[in-house]
Amino acid sequence: MKANSPIRIGICGLGTVGGGTFKLLRDNRSEIARRLGRQLEVCHVASRTPSSDYHDPNIRSSTDVFAVADDPQVDVLVESIGGFDPARELVERAIGNGKHVVTANKALIALHGNELFALAAQKGVVIAYESAVAGGIPIIKALREGLAANSIQWLAGIINGTGNFILTEMAEKQRDFAEVLEEAQQLGYAEADPTFDVEGIDAAHKLTILASIAFGIPLQFDKTYTEGISAVTTEDVKYARELGYVIKHLGIARKSDRGVEMRVHPTLISTKRLIAHVNGVMNAVLVKGNSVGATLYYGAGAGAEATASSVVADIMDIARSTSDGEQKTLVNTMPSLAFNDLNAEFPVLPISDIETAYYLRIQAHDKVGVMAKISSVLQNFDINIEAVIQKEPEKHGADKVPVVILSDLVFEKQIDRALEALEALPEISGKITRIRVEELDGGESR
Amino acid sequence: MKANSPIRIGICGLGTVGGGTFKLLRDNRSEIARRLGRQLEVCHVASRTPSSDYHDPNIRSSTDVFAVADDPQVDVLVESIGGFDPARELVERAIGNGKHVVTANKALIALHGNELFALAAQKGVVIAYESAVAGGIPIIKALREGLAANSIQWLAGIINGTGNFILTEMAEKQRDFAEVLEEAQQLGYAEADPTFDVEGIDAAHKLTILASIAFGIPLQFDKTYTEGISAVTTEDVKYARELGYVIKHLGIARKSDRGVEMRVHPTLISTKRLIAHVNGVMNAVLVKGNSVGATLYYGAGAGAEATASSVVADIMDIARSTSDGEQKTLVNTMPSLAFNDLNAEFPVLPISDIETAYYLRIQAHDKVGVMAKISSVLQNFDINIEAVIQKEPEKHGADKVPVVILSDLVFEKQIDRALEALEALPEISGKITRIRVEELDGGESR
Repeated sequence: MKANSPIRIGICGLGTVGGGTFKLLRDNRSEIARRLGRQLEVCHVASRTPSSDYHDPNIRSSTDVFAVADDPQVDVLVESIGGFDPARELVERAIGNGKHVVTANKALIALHGNELFALAAQKGVVIAYESAVAGGIPIIKALREGLAANSIQWLAGIINGTGNFILTEMAEKQRDFAEVLEEAQQLGYAEADPTFDVEGIDAAHKLTILASIAFGIPLQFDKTYTEGISAVTTEDVKYARELGYVIKHLGIARKSDRGVEMRVHPTLISTKRLIAHVNGVMNAVLVKGNSVGATLYYGAGAGAEATASSVVADIMDIARSTSDGEQKTLVNTMPSLAFNDLNAEFPVLPISDIETAYYLRIQAHDKVGVMAKISSVLQNFDINIEAVIQKEPEKHGADKVPVVILSDLVFEKQIDRALEALEALPEISGKITRIRVEELDGGESR
Repeated sequence: MKANSPIRIGICGLGTVGGGTFKLLRDNRSEIARRLGRQLEVCHVASRTPSSDYHDPNIRSSTDVFAVADDPQVDVLVESIGGFDPARELVERAIGNGKHVVTANKALIALHGNELFALAAQKGVVIAYESAVAGGIPIIKALREGLAANSIQWLAGIINGTGNFILTEMAEKQRDFAEVLEEAQQLGYAEADPTFDVEGIDAAHKLTILASIAFGIPLQFDKTYTEGISAVTTEDVKYARELGYVIKHLGIARKSDRGVEMRVHPTLISTKRLIAHVNGVMNAVLVKGNSVGATLYYGAGAGAEATASSVVADIMDIARSTSDGEQKTLVNTMPSLAFNDLNAEFPVLPISDIETAYYLRIQAHDKVGVMAKISSVLQNFDINIEAVIQKEPEKHGADKVPVVILSDLVFEKQIDRALEALEALPEISGKITRIRVEELDGGESR
């Protein structure tokens, strides 16, 4: 790439992300060039099923994505085919050929990023992945650069739009999970197989990436605790509201002297927190730095245009960091995972060693003294009660009443034992529902 | 600066910003080096009144800030003395001596940035100013880099913490402006002379900077319309709430075919918008890009630690973009105001040419037919009414009733004439209160 010569881009896959990137590069072409001082030119596209939408006599078109990786014209390869196979091999081939890679593939980065980043460093190229987390929100840049002076203490993110849409509808319209999921599928927010979204796997991919760049640890997807939202009921949403909380599906990463927490699960958040008001398909990430305090980043987490915004911003960063004459030498030395030396020894805590507050919903027989018995069991396990809602029977004539409890901070293994003891009581019926509660206090209300 | 040699920093002024920067560089020293791959070393500090807090036998200490600008050891000069004189001359001297400058001085950038940036470009050095807008929030980076692929359509920011603290207290506790201002002064949120904060001058400095980097226009502080919050009453706050709105002091920049709007004024925002929930001293900037849609950035807008977070991030960016061996050659070519060619011809619209919706509060005599008369006058000026609240007299036996109206979109010059006609009616008493209303629809609730 010469200093003011165009950057030549190859796009592999022309679905949502690739197609959106192609269109954005065309539609905002002149404003991008005004900012960058050079042109971004698509020179090669590849997709299994060629489409006339992307036909241009000046652009080479292939059905084999590897033709892009092998094209000597291409400076930057956009990997937008998704999945592992052949995405991983494609990225490796492009790196091997000295090309920079931009990808929105969160699964690929979360599971194979460690090896891919090492390969890229060895070859002196960049793998940029802003679009892999929270779509159009520049959260990777905020964490790696904007907050670089901070020691990050924790972060908490609504990083799956489908899940947030479902929980928002459940809260605002008292609708059931299953009913809203069906609507989300019809609206195209959720896949036919919704497992990745509603069971938290997609969010866990993103959280794994965020935790690595926040704390400077290798990517460890297998150590991220993951719990979905399919068990959240409208009762829980309603009781949470009565207590001043909303239920959100959060990805949480936290660093303490004991180690790092990485977990995705439904979470009660006080309505006093700004992130509690992030609704619909929108994403937001709240980051607590030791100097800046709490900062929050909000925007569209998915969709062709929002994702393309981040893909093209990554290409522009690459263009800037290589604009030193004819060489491809990298001059912006930002490490892929933000730190020059990753701390592989820092332990990731198992979920049993994590301390949180708890929301408990217990079905109790409507008898005198049942609340005293529950309190006594919790006290035996050193669990303090912060708030209680005790209701009339839900149906007239029913003999069971819901008892809702907010606990103080307690270790997971401790609550496991306490719930086992509670469920053994004759006054208590069925499994106890439990949802973690997070304070997320960034001092914002000082 | 050698590739892995330390970056040597001189700090001019050891008040809130300079002192905070000194402490942050010391406290987060090892994590910063882990990220950067090199050390950031303070080698020279200067302040009129030397303090033992910053004494270190390895750090040169001066009472003359120009000694730092002339110190050949210094790579990056942090200007944290504030004001224009001698800050402007100090920055010019540092640039002349080939040093990069980091400043939190919004007034200096908003009023003299055009000349200072030109001088820096000529000398091949950087003036970095992330900390000048919204303290610890990396909003300059988000606009210049994270959203670089977008054509920015508008932005709206709560960019003065003092003003937001006052409006939040007024809304949550029904307290008067004067009473809350006094508390803010006692808490140290407001200066003894609060004009800069409450009359919107500080916010106008920041908005001027944001508009330039959003749209690629020169800094034009003199064309930013500025209106403070000192006339906002608890009645207005209360009626706004009844209509589903809160009153915030916003800086708004918008681009249309007709030109650019830059304005700071009290604004009604629907409680459906996330930014309506930004309370206390916190800042937030909502940005609408043509590709990404709406994104929001939230955090502490002032304070030693939050501001230092951005100052040090700027130093780290400079360190990265100069890490090419022994030369000081810049390789990251990000232009100071985000664009390579600024559009000086793009008109800035006068406030009379701006179109917004309006909240009107009218004191009317409690007579039959007064509402019909008001409606008729507004209709004569083509102003549509969106909502009305008509109240009982505020005091028992009083003959005046408040009439509150939300209008549709109307040009400022049109509402000026309509209000003149209304105020001439015998049924109407005194001046009519008017506050602009903004939709701020980023499609977040799709």
